[in-house]
Amino acid sequence: MNGYEISPWELRWRGLAIDQLHRTESTFALANGHIGMRGALEEGEPVGLPGTYLNGFYESHALPYAEIGYGYPEDGQTIVNVTDGKIIRLLVEDEPLDLRYGRTLAHQRWIDFRSGILSRDTVWESPTGRRVRIRSQRIVSFTQRAVAAIHYEIEPADDLQLVVQSDLLANEPIVSRGKDPRVAAALRSPLVADFATADGYGAVLVHHTRESGLRVAAGMDHEIDTSDGMRTDIRAEGDLARLTAAVDVPAGGKLRLVKYLGYGWSAQRSVPALRSQVEAALAGARQTGWDGLLREQRTFLDDFWTAADIEIDGDERLQQAVRFALFHILQAGARGESRAIAGKGLTGPGYDGHAFWDTETFVLPVLTYTMPDAARDALRWRHSTLPQARERARVLGKRGAAFPWRSITGAECSAYWPAGTAAFHVSAAVADAAARYTAACADDTFDREYGTELLVETARLWVSLGHHDQHGGFRIDGVTGPDEYTAVVDNNVYTNLMAQRNLVEAAAACGRNPEVAERLGVFPDEIEAWRRAAEEMVIPFDDLLGVHPQSEGFTQHAEWDFEATPKEKYPLLLHYPYFDLYRKQVVKQADLVLAMHLRGDAFTPEQKAANFAYYEARTVRDSSLSAGTQAVLAAEVGHLGLAYDYIFEAAMTDLADLHDNVRNGLHMASLAGAWAGVVAGLGGFRDHGGTPTFAPRLPSELDRVSFRMCVHRTRVQVEIKRDTAHYRHISGGALSTSHHGEPIVIEPGPGLSLPIPECPSLPRPTQPAGREPGNRRSS
Amino acid sequence: MNGYEISPWELRWRGLAIDQLHRTESTFALANGHIGMRGALEEGEPVGLPGTYLNGFYESHALPYAEIGYGYPEDGQTIVNVTDGKIIRLLVEDEPLDLRYGRTLAHQRWIDFRSGILSRDTVWESPTGRRVRIRSQRIVSFTQRAVAAIHYEIEPADDLQLVVQSDLLANEPIVSRGKDPRVAAALRSPLVADFATADGYGAVLVHHTRESGLRVAAGMDHEIDTSDGMRTDIRAEGDLARLTAAVDVPAGGKLRLVKYLGYGWSAQRSVPALRSQVEAALAGARQTGWDGLLREQRTFLDDFWTAADIEIDGDERLQQAVRFALFHILQAGARGESRAIAGKGLTGPGYDGHAFWDTETFVLPVLTYTMPDAARDALRWRHSTLPQARERARVLGKRGAAFPWRSITGAECSAYWPAGTAAFHVSAAVADAAARYTAACADDTFDREYGTELLVETARLWVSLGHHDQHGGFRIDGVTGPDEYTAVVDNNVYTNLMAQRNLVEAAAACGRNPEVAERLGVFPDEIEAWRRAAEEMVIPFDDLLGVHPQSEGFTQHAEWDFEATPKEKYPLLLHYPYFDLYRKQVVKQADLVLAMHLRGDAFTPEQKAANFAYYEARTVRDSSLSAGTQAVLAAEVGHLGLAYDYIFEAAMTDLADLHDNVRNGLHMASLAGAWAGVVAGLGGFRDHGGTPTFAPRLPSELDRVSFRMCVHRTRVQVEIKRDTAHYRHISGGALSTSHHGEPIVIEPGPGLSLPIPECPSLPRPTQPAGREPGNRRSS
Repeated sequence: MNGYEISPWELRWRGLAIDQLHRTESTFALANGHIGMRGALEEGEPVGLPGTYLNGFYESHALPYAEIGYGYPEDGQTIVNVTDGKIIRLLVEDEPLDLRYGRTLAHQRWIDFRSGILSRDTVWESPTGRRVRIRSQRIVSFTQRAVAAIHYEIEPADDLQLVVQSDLLANEPIVSRGKDPRVAAALRSPLVADFATADGYGAVLVHHTRESGLRVAAGMDHEIDTSDGMRTDIRAEGDLARLTAAVDVPAGGKLRLVKYLGYGWSAQRSVPALRSQVEAALAGARQTGWDGLLREQRTFLDDFWTAADIEIDGDERLQQAVRFALFHILQAGARGESRAIAGKGLTGPGYDGHAFWDTETFVLPVLTYTMPDAARDALRWRHSTLPQARERARVLGKRGAAFPWRSITGAECSAYWPAGTAAFHVSAAVADAAARYTAACADDTFDREYGTELLVETARLWVSLGHHDQHGGFRIDGVTGPDEYTAVVDNNVYTNLMAQRNLVEAAAACGRNPEVAERLGVFPDEIEAWRRAAEEMVIPFDDLLGVHPQSEGFTQHAEWDFEATPKEKYPLLLHYPYFDLYRKQVVKQADLVLAMHLRGDAFTPEQKAANFAYYEARTVRDSSLSAGTQAVLAAEVGHLGLAYDYIFEAAMTDLADLHDNVRNGLHMASLAGAWAGVVAGLGGFRDHGGTPTFAPRLPSELDRVSFRMCVHRTRVQVEIKRDTAHYRHISGGALSTSHHGEPIVIEPGPGLSLPIPECPSLPRPTQPAGREPGNRRSS
Repeated sequence: MNGYEISPWELRWRGLAIDQLHRTESTFALANGHIGMRGALEEGEPVGLPGTYLNGFYESHALPYAEIGYGYPEDGQTIVNVTDGKIIRLLVEDEPLDLRYGRTLAHQRWIDFRSGILSRDTVWESPTGRRVRIRSQRIVSFTQRAVAAIHYEIEPADDLQLVVQSDLLANEPIVSRGKDPRVAAALRSPLVADFATADGYGAVLVHHTRESGLRVAAGMDHEIDTSDGMRTDIRAEGDLARLTAAVDVPAGGKLRLVKYLGYGWSAQRSVPALRSQVEAALAGARQTGWDGLLREQRTFLDDFWTAADIEIDGDERLQQAVRFALFHILQAGARGESRAIAGKGLTGPGYDGHAFWDTETFVLPVLTYTMPDAARDALRWRHSTLPQARERARVLGKRGAAFPWRSITGAECSAYWPAGTAAFHVSAAVADAAARYTAACADDTFDREYGTELLVETARLWVSLGHHDQHGGFRIDGVTGPDEYTAVVDNNVYTNLMAQRNLVEAAAACGRNPEVAERLGVFPDEIEAWRRAAEEMVIPFDDLLGVHPQSEGFTQHAEWDFEATPKEKYPLLLHYPYFDLYRKQVVKQADLVLAMHLRGDAFTPEQKAANFAYYEARTVRDSSLSAGTQAVLAAEVGHLGLAYDYIFEAAMTDLADLHDNVRNGLHMASLAGAWAGVVAGLGGFRDHGGTPTFAPRLPSELDRVSFRMCVHRTRVQVEIKRDTAHYRHISGGALSTSHHGEPIVIEPGPGLSLPIPECPSLPRPTQPAGREPGNRRSS
C-alpha cells in the first residue's frame, strides 16, 4: 500500500509510512548543487533525519587515533545541517499537525522530474476530529542558486482557527550517527549565533561554526494570501526566527503562503555582508515570484532533458529509475560551481558529506556528456584544491599533486591510511576526468587554464611514485586500487593503466599548451620521463590462467569460500577482517573490470571476455560503485541480459535501498552507473583517446532504448532498436564518430539508421553464490 | 662528571643530574617479575616518572577509532602506577629534603648485580646550611615475591630535629603520556579507595581500578632504630597512609629505619582477603628481617650467576653492560609466575606495559638456558591465555589459537590492524618457545600439560591460514612478518619457516603425547595435513639476485634512497608514511636474518652469507630488536668484528639511551639480544630440532669470552679464547653436543679444550649510510 508508484516522469509515494520517512527524505531531497534540502515534512516532525546543507559548509573535529602514524590527517570535516528553513508548523485550533497523531486520511508526495517540484497532498484529521487538507510545493531553484521556496496551502473542512509558524531553526536536534563522542559533541550544536533580525514577514539568522569558523546566513520572507483578517507576528533571536500567522478560515476557504528562503555562507565575509547577500537573494526571488521561479525551473529542466534524456521502452520501472538517477545527478552537480560534488550529493550526511574519486570517475562523465558546464565547474573545484594536493604529495614524500581520498575542502580527511595515503588512483581519476572533459567539449580555455596543470601535476606524482626495475619495467608498488577488498598492492592494473593514460595526456597537453608547460617548469626531459614511464608501465598478466591479475600475485591468492558465506555476512567488511579480505580472491567492486571500461584500448576482445568471466565469479558488489561498470563490460563482451540486470541494479540502488543506508543520502556514483550502463553499456559509447565511438545493442528483454548526449558541443540522440540503431542530430555541428567500428558522421537531417551486428554467443558468466544481480526479478 | 661508572659487577651513577632522573629511574629499577619499582628517589621529588607496578595489574579504556573495522579491539589495557610505597620524605628542621634546593655535596646511586641492592649515598646541605647524609638500600625480594624493603639512614652533621614521613601514596600525579584525552582521563586517577587502616608502625591501603575492576592492596611496616626519644604517628585514609616519626638526632647520631612493603592484587579477592594477604607478606618479611632478606637475595643471585654469568675480557664497558642486561632480564622474569613478561619488564610504562612476541623470541631463550623455571612460568602464562587466543582466531575466521600482538591479559590490544590482525608470527614465536623449552629442559610434564596444546593450537592456525596453490605450494598470504617496515605481505620467509617448524613440532608432540592429542581431538588426518603443509611450504627465492626475498616480491621493490635520508629522519616511521616504507627495500629490524638464526637449518652457508650481506645493506635498525640478531648472523658468516659491534649496541641500548626513550622503561628484548649475540653469535650456540650445538669464535678485539648455560639440566661453561674453546661441566649429567660440527660430550672433569677453526674471510658488509653500528667507537 505504501511505496513508490511507477510513472515515467515522476517519483510518487502514496500513503503514510512514518518508518520509511528517513528513506523518502533522501529520495525526495531537492538540491541545486549549492543548497540541498532533504525531503522532510514541513511540520518538522515526524522526521527521519532533518537536513539542510550548503555545499562546502562543514565543521572540523580532531580525528582520534589509538595509534597514530606519520601522515595521518589530524582533522576531520563533517557536513553540517545548517539553519532549517523548510519548517512550517501548523496548529489546527489548539492541536499541532503531527501525522503521528490523529488520522491521516490521505497522503502522497511526489517529485516531478520535468518541473523540479516536490509536491505534497495530505488530508489529516486531528485527534478531536478536525480535518484539514495540506498541499505544498517546494523547489530549490536551479536558476537562482541561493534560493529555495515553498508554496503551502491549508484548506480546512470546517470553520477553523489556524496558526501557522514558519521558522528558521538552527542547531536542530539530531541523533548522533558516529561512535566518537568528540565528533558527536562537535556536531550536536555546531552553530554559534552571530546575529538575528526580523521585520515584516521576513527574518535573517547568521551563525558561525565553532571550529571551522565558517559563517552562514539564512533568510526567509513570505507572501500570505488569505481572505480574512489575520494576525501576524515575527521574531528572531539566537537559533530561531519565526513568523506566526493566526487566522480563522471558513470551510471552503484557504490559507496560502509562499515562503522564500535565501542562503549564503562564507569563510571570510562578515555578518553584515552575509546578511546583505541573503536579503538580496530574497529580494530577487520575490521579484521573480513563485510562478516565475517555477517557470525558470521548468525551462532549465526542459533544456536538461533535451540534452540528457534516456528512454527505455519495455521496462517502466527502469524508465522511472533512470530518470530519477539523471534528475538527482543534475541536482548534485548543476550549480556546485566552485565546490565539490559529494558522494551523496546534498541529499544526506552520509560519508560526512565528503567527495571521493567516484565523482570524477562516475559522475563527471555523465555531466561531461549532458551538462558540460557542471563538469567543468567540478573540475575547477579540483583545480582550486591543487595547493592542498601539492602539500599532501609533499607530506607523502612525492612530487606533483596527490588528491585526497575523502574531503570537503581538498585536505585529506581519511583516517584509514591504506586509503588516505595509498589510494593514488584518485589523482588518475582527476586527470582522466580533465582529459575527458577537454576532449569531449573541445574546451581550449579550460585546457589552458585548468586541465593542463591538473594533468602535469598528477603526471609528476606517478613518476615520483613508481620506479624502473631491473627488467625494464616501470612499477607502481604498494598502492591501493579501486577494489576496497584489496589494499597496498603492487602493480594494480587499473592504477597502472590510468597512470599511463595520465602520463600520455600530460605530455600531449604540454604539447598543446607550451606556455603553460613553461610556467609549470616542465622541461623536455620531464616529458621524456613521462613517456618512458608510460611505455614501460608494468601490466602483469597470468599466463597460466590467461587473465590479468587485478594486481601482482592476485590470481595466486586463495579463493574466497563463497559457498560457506551466508547472505547475512554481506557486506563482508562488516564480518571479516581486512587482512583476510585483502589476501583472497574476493573483489568488492569493479577494479580490473573498470580498467577494461576506461582503458578498454589496452585489452584485446579475448582478454576482455576472459577477464570479465574471471572477475565476475569473484566480485561481490558490496559497493554501489560496481554494478554500472559490470553492466558496461557485460554488454561489451556480449552478455546483454546481464548488462540489463546490472543497469537495473545500479538504477534501483536507492529506490530499492539495496544497501540499507539510503537514509544517509543517495549514492550518486551508482545513479551515474545507471547512465554508464545505458550509454557505455547498451550504447557501447567509448571515448578512448578523446574519440567518441558507439557500438549499440539492445537486450532481448527491452523494446527500445534511446539516449541523448552532447559531444564536441553537438547534441545527438542514439536510438537502439532490435536490429538497427538510429543516430539523430539535435543541435550543433556535425559529429564524426563510429558505429561498431564503421566511421559515421551525425549531421543535421533525417539521421542514420544502421544495422546492429550479431552479438557473440558466450555462456553467461556466474557470480559468487547468492551475489547474482537478482533484484530485477525479485523486487 | 655525571654518568655511569664502569665496573664489572655494578652500575653506579655518581653525581646529581636531575635532568637525567627519568633515565636512571629505568636503569635503577628493581623488580622480581611480580613487583616493579622504578629507581625514584625516596623523597618523591624531584622525579622523572614515578612508577610502582604489579605484573598484570592494568586499567582498561576504550580504544578510539575515526574509522572502525571488523575485528578491531574495543578496549585497550594500560599498566597502572599502583600505590607508591617507596616514598620516605624527610624534614631537616623545617626544610624538606629536596635536591632541587640547597646543595648536594655528594650523591651516588648504584645497583649491585650480586646483592640485588639499589643503594644511595647523598650528602645534602639545606638552603639554610643544615647538612645531613642519607644512605638507603632498597630491594625487591626475589625470594618473597610480594615483598620489597628499604633501609633508610640519616646522619645529621649537627644536632638536628628530623621528621621522617614514610608513605603509601595512591594516584600519584603523572604527566600524561598519550594524546587521547580519554586514556589520559582513565589514568589520571585510576585507583578508587576501598579501605585504609593503620596501627602501630604499619598501614594498609586497598584500592580498585575504575574500569577493569582489579583490586590492589599495599601495606607497609617499619622498624625504627634511634637512640633518642621519638614521637611517632600513623594515619591512613583514602589515597594516603603515613607514618610520621619526629626525633632530635645529635651530631654523630643516626636515625635508621627499615620499611617493609607488601603488595597483592586480584581480580576476584575481597578487600579483607587482600588486606590479609599483604599483612601476611609483611609479617613474613619482618620475621626474615632486613639482614635475612639480603642474605636470601644474595643466595638467589649467586645461584643465578653460577648458571648464567658471561665474562668478557678486553672490554670493561661491554662486561658491565652484559651483566646489566642479564640482571634486568632476571628481574623481569624471575617471579612472574602466572603473568606475562612485558616488553619493558616492570621498569616503566612504555608500550602500556604490554607483552609482545619479543618475549618468546628474545627473552625466553635467555631464561630457558639460564633460569628454566622462569621460562616455564612465562609459557604457562601464554597457555593460560589460550581461551582468548582461540576466541581471537575465531573472530579472525581462523581455527586454533591466534596470540595477540600486544596485551596484558591475553586479549588483543593493538589498534593497528596490520599488527593486531595480521602479525600471526606471534603464534609461531609462542610455539617455538614452547618447543625450545621442552627440548632444552627435557620437561615432559610441561610438554604434556602445556607445550603440546600450545603447539597443536598454533599448528591449527597455520593450516587454516594458508592454502595449497595450483603449483603444489603451501602459501601464507597477507600476513605481517617481524619487520615493521613491511606489512600484510605474501609468503614472508620468516613466518613460513617458523610455521613450518610449528607444524612439525606439533606433529612430534602429538606423537609423544597421544593422550593429549586425543583430548584435543587431533586425528591422524589432521597431523597429515600439518605434515603436508610443512613439506610444501613456499619459500620464495630470487634466482636473479641469489637471495631470499624477505617476502614475495620484496627484491623487486624500489630501493630506499639512504643517501638522501638525513640522520634526523630516523626512525623513519616518524617521518615517512607507512605505504612508502612498506613498498620499498628498507628493513626496520631483522626479519629474513632472524629466520636465518632461528631456522638456520633451512639455509645453506652460501645463502646465509649472501642474504646477510643483502639485508645488512637495507636494515636501518629503527627497532631495538635487531642488533642482537644481526650479531648472531654476522658471527656465523664470519664477520666477528661486526658481531662484536652489534653485541655492544644491543647491550648498550638502554645505558646509552640509543632510542632516546629509556625513560619509559628498558628494552628487554634488546638486553636479551646482547645475550644472544654472545651465546648464539660468539658461542655459535644453536638448538635446531632441540639439539644443542656450539661453534665458538672470538673477535680479534676481545681477549676472552666465557658464558654459562643450562641444557638438559646440565650446567656448563663455554670459554672462548683466541684459538681454543674450553667446555667445562658445572653440574648435572653429561651433555652431548658438538663443537663446530664435531660431536663432543661435556662431562664432569677437567673439561675439553678444542681448537677453533679458521674464520672465513669475507668483505665486511655495508650498512645504509649513517646506520652503521658506530656507537662502540663513538660513545
